[in-house]
Amino acid sequence: MANEPAATPEPLPSSPAPQNIYDDSTFFAGYATLARFGDGWTTAVEHGDVLALLPEAHGLRVLDLDCGNGQWAQYLAKAGAQEVIGVDISARMLAIARAERQHPNLTYVQSALETLDFPVNRFELVLSSMAFHYVADYAGLVQRISRWLVPGGVLLFTTEHPIYTAGNATAGFVKDEQGQAIHWAIDDYADEGLRLKSWFVDGVHKYHRTISTLLNGVLDAGLAIERVLEPVPSAEAVVARPDWADERKRPIFLLIRARKA
Amino acid sequence: MANEPAATPEPLPSSPAPQNIYDDSTFFAGYATLARFGDGWTTAVEHGDVLALLPEAHGLRVLDLDCGNGQWAQYLAKAGAQEVIGVDISARMLAIARAERQHPNLTYVQSALETLDFPVNRFELVLSSMAFHYVADYAGLVQRISRWLVPGGVLLFTTEHPIYTAGNATAGFVKDEQGQAIHWAIDDYADEGLRLKSWFVDGVHKYHRTISTLLNGVLDAGLAIERVLEPVPSAEAVVARPDWADERKRPIFLLIRARKA
Repeated sequence: MANEPAATPEPLPSSPAPQNIYDDSTFFAGYATLARFGDGWTTAVEHGDVLALLPEAHGLRVLDLDCGNGQWAQYLAKAGAQEVIGVDISARMLAIARAERQHPNLTYVQSALETLDFPVNRFELVLSSMAFHYVADYAGLVQRISRWLVPGGVLLFTTEHPIYTAGNATAGFVKDEQGQAIHWAIDDYADEGLRLKSWFVDGVHKYHRTISTLLNGVLDAGLAIERVLEPVPSAEAVVARPDWADERKRPIFLLIRARKA
Repeated sequence: MANEPAATPEPLPSSPAPQNIYDDSTFFAGYATLARFGDGWTTAVEHGDVLALLPEAHGLRVLDLDCGNGQWAQYLAKAGAQEVIGVDISARMLAIARAERQHPNLTYVQSALETLDFPVNRFELVLSSMAFHYVADYAGLVQRISRWLVPGGVLLFTTEHPIYTAGNATAGFVKDEQGQAIHWAIDDYADEGLRLKSWFVDGVHKYHRTISTLLNGVLDAGLAIERVLEPVPSAEAVVARPDWADERKRPIFLLIRARKA
C-alpha cells in the first residue's frame, strides 16, 4: 500500500488517557521559566480575581485540584483552613510542593483528576486553578465535585477561556508585517473536544468547550452560579505596562464561582 | 486651524439616546428581506432553542421587549398566555404587528426599553429576542425587569454574542483569496461599549459587553441563571446545508434563561 496517497489524518480520540505533561522534562523546563511558577504567581493576571472570590478559608476543609507546586494549597492552609488536600498528577510538581510548600494542615496526593474520589460532603471548598481544560470528562468531574461538597460549599475554578481554546492551526493572534497583533482569530467554536496544542512541546492535550457547556455543566451538577469573571489586565494597568495591551484583545482566563444548593 | 492634521476622531459617546434604526427606511428595506422578518422566523438558527426554554405559557402575564412585528408575542398569546404586552420603539414594526399579528390577549405599546416602567410583580415571563445589544444600560434594564417579575418569574432573552459584537474594523470573517472563511477575528474584547456597525446602513448602534458582564448583570439583579445556550446549526444540519458550515466557526447568539428567587 506504499504507493497510495497519504491517508487522512486519524481523527483525534475523543477521550484519551489523562496526559501527565508536567512530568515531561522539556515541557517542565519551559513551564519553570514562567513567572507564575515561582514567587511571581501573585502577579499573574487572574490572581487578584481568584483572591477576591475565595471564601474566608478559616476552618474550612479544602480540596485543591491540580495544585501544582502548592501555591494556593499552602496559601489556604496558612489562611486558617482546617485541612487542605492538594492533588496533582505530576510527581515533579508534588516534589516541589512537598519540599517548598509544607504546612501542618496540608496533605499532597498524586492522582489524575479523572480517577479521584472522595466521600460525599467531604469539603467546604474545592479550588482548581487552570486545570479543567486538561480533563476530557468535564461534566463528570463537576458532578463528582458536587457530591464531595457539603450543602453550601463552594467550587471556585479558573480554566482556559473558550475564546482561547477555540481554534486550529490558523487561530491565535494574527499579526501585521511589523509583528503587531491585528486581532485574535478563533475557529470551530462549536466543535468541542481535544485540541493538540504547542506549548513548550507539541501535542499538549487540551479540551475546547463552549461557554455554555462550561456553565451548564455547573448547573447540571446542582450548583448555583454566583460569579463569572474573565480576568484581563485593567485599562489602567496597560498604561503602565503597554506590552500588556494585547491581553485586552481576548481573554485567556475564565473564572467561575458556584455554590451547592 | 485649517492646516492642522486631521483631529483624532471624537470618542463615541458612552450612552447616546436610544436609536430607532428600524424606522430608518433604508435599514428597514434591508431588514425586511431577511427570512426571520417573515414566516421564515421559525427557521432562524436560535428559534428551536428559545422554544425549548420557554416556560409553558398558559395563564401567564407576559412582557415581550422589542417585540418587532409581533412574532413571539402572538405565539405566546395563542399558546394561552393570560396577557401579552409587546413593546417596541419602531412605529413601522408595530404597524405591521397590529395589522398582521393581533390577538385578544395581546397589546402593543410603542416605547424605548430605556424609558419603560411597570409596577413590581407585574409579569410571570419577560421575553426579549435580539434586543439587549441595542441598550446602553444593560445592568439597569435587567434590574428593572427583575422588579417587574413575580418571585419565580422567568427572564428569557437572546442577544448578540460577545464573540460577535467584539471587534472593530478588522474583525469578522477573515477570508482567503477564494472568498472562503479562514477564521473569525475578534478584537478589543475587554473594552465594552458602543460600536457603530454597518448592517444595511452605516452607524447602527450596538453595545459590546463581555460574557461576564452579561451573566453578572443577571446575578446582580437577583436572578438565578438556569440555562445558557449559544445557538448554532447542528453538525447534522450542516451536512444538509453546507453553506451553513461557517456558522459553527463562531456563535452569533447568546441565550440566557434566569429566574427570580
